[in-house]
Amino acid sequence: MRKKKREIVMDFQAILEEIHKEIQDVLLDGKVADYIPKLAAVPLDKFGMAVQTLDGDLFTIGDAAENFSIQSISKAYTLILALQFIGEDRLWKRVGREPSGNPFNSLVQLEYEHGIPRNPFINAGALVIVDIILSNSKNPGQTLLDFVRQRSDNPGIGFDNEVAASEKKTGFRNSALANFLKSYGNLENDVDSVLEAYFLQCSLSMNCIDLAKSLMMLTNHGLSPWSGEQILTKSQAKRINSLMLTCGTYDAVGDFAYRVGLPGKSGIGGGIAAFIPGKLSVCVWSPGLNSNGNSLAGTLALELFTTKTGMSIF
Amino acid sequence: MRKKKREIVMDFQAILEEIHKEIQDVLLDGKVADYIPKLAAVPLDKFGMAVQTLDGDLFTIGDAAENFSIQSISKAYTLILALQFIGEDRLWKRVGREPSGNPFNSLVQLEYEHGIPRNPFINAGALVIVDIILSNSKNPGQTLLDFVRQRSDNPGIGFDNEVAASEKKTGFRNSALANFLKSYGNLENDVDSVLEAYFLQCSLSMNCIDLAKSLMMLTNHGLSPWSGEQILTKSQAKRINSLMLTCGTYDAVGDFAYRVGLPGKSGIGGGIAAFIPGKLSVCVWSPGLNSNGNSLAGTLALELFTTKTGMSIF
Amino acid sequence: MRKKKREIVMDFQAILEEIHKEIQDVLLDGKVADYIPKLAAVPLDKFGMAVQTLDGDLFTIGDAAENFSIQSISKAYTLILALQFIGEDRLWKRVGREPSGNPFNSLVQLEYEHGIPRNPFINAGALVIVDIILSNSKNPGQTLLDFVRQRSDNPGIGFDNEVAASEKKTGFRNSALANFLKSYGNLENDVDSVLEAYFLQCSLSMNCIDLAKSLMMLTNHGLSPWSGEQILTKSQAKRINSLMLTCGTYDAVGDFAYRVGLPGKSGIGGGIAAFIPGKLSVCVWSPGLNSNGNSLAGTLALELFTTKTGMSIF
Amino acid sequence: MRKKKREIVMDFQAILEEIHKEIQDVLLDGKVADYIPKLAAVPLDKFGMAVQTLDGDLFTIGDAAENFSIQSISKAYTLILALQFIGEDRLWKRVGREPSGNPFNSLVQLEYEHGIPRNPFINAGALVIVDIILSNSKNPGQTLLDFVRQRSDNPGIGFDNEVAASEKKTGFRNSALANFLKSYGNLENDVDSVLEAYFLQCSLSMNCIDLAKSLMMLTNHGLSPWSGEQILTKSQAKRINSLMLTCGTYDAVGDFAYRVGLPGKSGIGGGIAAFIPGKLSVCVWSPGLNSNGNSLAGTLALELFTTKTGMSIF
Repeated sequence: MRKKKREIVMDFQAILEEIHKEIQDVLLDGKVADYIPKLAAVPLDKFGMAVQTLDGDLFTIGDAAENFSIQSISKAYTLILALQFIGEDRLWKRVGREPSGNPFNSLVQLEYEHGIPRNPFINAGALVIVDIILSNSKNPGQTLLDFVRQRSDNPGIGFDNEVAASEKKTGFRNSALANFLKSYGNLENDVDSVLEAYFLQCSLSMNCIDLAKSLMMLTNHGLSPWSGEQILTKSQAKRINSLMLTCGTYDAVGDFAYRVGLPGKSGIGGGIAAFIPGKLSVCVWSPGLNSNGNSLAGTLALELFTTKTGMSIF
Repeated sequence: MRKKKREIVMDFQAILEEIHKEIQDVLLDGKVADYIPKLAAVPLDKFGMAVQTLDGDLFTIGDAAENFSIQSISKAYTLILALQFIGEDRLWKRVGREPSGNPFNSLVQLEYEHGIPRNPFINAGALVIVDIILSNSKNPGQTLLDFVRQRSDNPGIGFDNEVAASEKKTGFRNSALANFLKSYGNLENDVDSVLEAYFLQCSLSMNCIDLAKSLMMLTNHGLSPWSGEQILTKSQAKRINSLMLTCGTYDAVGDFAYRVGLPGKSGIGGGIAAFIPGKLSVCVWSPGLNSNGNSLAGTLALELFTTKTGMSIF
Repeated sequence: MRKKKREIVMDFQAILEEIHKEIQDVLLDGKVADYIPKLAAVPLDKFGMAVQTLDGDLFTIGDAAENFSIQSISKAYTLILALQFIGEDRLWKRVGREPSGNPFNSLVQLEYEHGIPRNPFINAGALVIVDIILSNSKNPGQTLLDFVRQRSDNPGIGFDNEVAASEKKTGFRNSALANFLKSYGNLENDVDSVLEAYFLQCSLSMNCIDLAKSLMMLTNHGLSPWSGEQILTKSQAKRINSLMLTCGTYDAVGDFAYRVGLPGKSGIGGGIAAFIPGKLSVCVWSPGLNSNGNSLAGTLALELFTTKTGMSIF
Repeated sequence: MRKKKREIVMDFQAILEEIHKEIQDVLLDGKVADYIPKLAAVPLDKFGMAVQTLDGDLFTIGDAAENFSIQSISKAYTLILALQFIGEDRLWKRVGREPSGNPFNSLVQLEYEHGIPRNPFINAGALVIVDIILSNSKNPGQTLLDFVRQRSDNPGIGFDNEVAASEKKTGFRNSALANFLKSYGNLENDVDSVLEAYFLQCSLSMNCIDLAKSLMMLTNHGLSPWSGEQILTKSQAKRINSLMLTCGTYDAVGDFAYRVGLPGKSGIGGGIAAFIPGKLSVCVWSPGLNSNGNSLAGTLALELFTTKTGMSIF
């Protein structure tokens, strides 16, 4: 009861406002991703944050309603979809669930481990996940759109075709990964279709509120808090959270777990979605990245959030 | 309040008894560590488990009071001691906090990363931690003994000199690691002293109850629940838990997080100490190991524990 | 003069006949390359050998006049062409000249060395060489054909389109390598054009006699012994020979140098072209491969040749 | 006959003098090895060169008679001794003969290849070779001394104990390698004895003339040109030369073969011994090293030697 009471009185709005002030010092220290023109053009001073509680409250600050390129955060959606399609047993035969200890788009470990990506959140693993969706859906792009629109209750969510086109144009390393996977027999579909679908998913354009809402099943043990649908089993939800904690933030998972202490998935567009199971989801966006490719101000904001709220899974 | 009530009525003893029955099927499937005669001689059918709650209750089953070689679990104690000696800022300059993606005694990553071990729980990292203690204590063995005896309220805890001697006799790879670290300038003390202290710490002989009690500060946000001493700051306790989750179970951290979902530290003697922050510590021992070097029945027991209690950090 | 005399009296024909007999024992022990239907269909008992001396004599045995897929031996021709196009200074900025210590189509070293292939004879290096030719020739296929036809005085030499098509169909790893090189900025032309030209060059269909004749400039210090043209400078010829010795036979260069002791270039079709500078070129073909991807009977035949003739560069 | 004549009239002394002049420009560009005080103290402007022909002529220039620390060149002697003790079949089971593609004291490949060093000239391989000698000689240091004194006809050759002591004091990486080898079961003797003998062999103090004379059996197909003894079989001599060419100059074998085109063995003391089988041995010393750890002026001197004499094995 003590705990419950503390949560009720916690003033999330005030906390977000404090955080908003405190991150200003580092807001311009990050570096915007520049391999794609449209990402490079995002102003460095953007910052948004949204907290969605299981009780149904939504708190926002700054540019929380502004769309950005969610990039790798989309790997959370496709993992959920692939689990729905083929289940855990078949999925974990084709992708591992261990942290990689190598950059997210490295080919080294893939070669040493004979084409089995270390986990679904490095690019090689995400390509296998896309391949699974492709084998089970006639239109994987539409399947993904339907899912995120429904889960975030925002029918306006779409892909950014300019970003998708740029990804394709510069995606030689992803193309190398896909061809490498194919050489090991770990892609069922043809390389070009897999890449097409992958570049599309990376181009999803969403905002902090959409993200916070759409992934509430991870906070709520697999259940949608609104529709009451069982999107994932309780155990699957727990497991995706554990995967995010050990593999969700590129090669900085240790540092992120150490500082923030929450399961989360980051994207090179500067977004991070994080979760306190049983309580809330908290999403942040700020385009300036640190040297690990995670949002610099965003990581600090989440660190401040767990410090100020005293909420952590540890 | 609902939550609090559920915890009160939870019958841990009954759960331990169920687990004890259910793990019998796999008890003989593991493989006892055989690189040291005394470890090789431990009967495969040993199994003990202890749960220590923050409320002060202790529940045990099987061989929970029987001593075994805690081996790498000792790395949790030495990390705490090193943090007390030199603090976080200095410590993290010499050891990383990222999962390694490589076997616990691998030299590969150490070479690629120029002598900075990935984290304090792989052997290379533990050697650096021991070096820190050596630089700050005249008798590191006694310092460690004093710490575990006091924290577990068991003055009878000691080293197993036969095991320590065997470790030394067969410890060529650890010797290679120590010399390699020295070649990179990441050991202050001489190689032999570091190895001596390291082999000694691995030989700590304790039981599940000792382990569960001695690490309660990790469950209790850094505070000893008995003496009330602040062993670690709240944030240090949280951070050690996050390190355990991302790095504590050799190269199976992903699998362990996925199945068990708790921060924990395992040892090749078959022990595992795990934590539910704010609630309890749970320690298990069974000498048969799985292919990753973690206790086979022990991992299953912890998985059953989180499933049956519904307790998980995720 | 003593030496000269010994060469004159050396009965190469008798030696080839002895070798032909002695390799029969192992002829069926090799394994035909089976990743392409047409290679897989070559009978295991094929064996041909041709010796072309600087004095102008040609000695042959077995299936020396039968065409086979020369595969990676073509990398010798393209290296010569690329040197003619852009010279040594520019070429060695884009490709190294060190042995790789890794399989010929490995991506590991390429990643560690940031897109600079170790040498022009591993696949990654050969792709860069093809890229150089593409940047300097409107029709690289025709340029290559013209070169080998003229150098071997056989206008009938052509590509095997079925083999080229199969290479393309199964060439995912080469496609991965090309995309990887492109991601590092080490391909000037588009990935598909480079791959197209590469698969074509691998499909060159030639026989032992063609090979022995066409590469005589390597035996003759860069000079064509027939036309008198200076194809390569003396120093370039010497250097290509040294490259062959240190990098020409996949990851068995040490074993090949140890047993045969001649510079040579092998192909997965079972051909090997080797050189005794100042004296002769000797080419062998037998489709059964050893575990390193070099012709099993072919390597033995060359070993016997150096033993029986007493000729070796060492 | 033309060739024979050219050799007779070749004025090696004049060539050495030309080389001596031409290398002056780069003499001070190298960097003296500085991990050992005595090596660090060698003046950068030292340069000596000696040519010993099979005809019995000796040509020298500069500091050819001045002793220096031959370091890794000693690996040639120990390989010959080990071959004499246990023969090729047994030796090549414990050490490979492939170039490594990694630094000479790397542990990476050793781990991937489970304790079998790539070749006898990287440090790990040399430690195995020393272990073989230790198993077959009561006093390996004396055995080595006897060998080099007899082969160079200089009873004054000795070890430099100060260098040996320094090697031991700073030899953590070699100690790591030895312990690592022991952990894989690839050392028969205890680690300390192997290291002791290894550090001793590295401290051999010899001059260019000694080196040139002592390894003439590699030029003369295994036969001592003076005593007529068969030190190695013809085939062993040929094979050691091929090993030197593919593995003798650290991770610059490709570059060395490319520029110099002779089998050779270098040492970090700045010495290089090279061979033109059937003709001569040529040894050079200059302490300034290039970035690969080979003598900078020494490599250039050998390159000039092959260019000016037109002698090359290719």
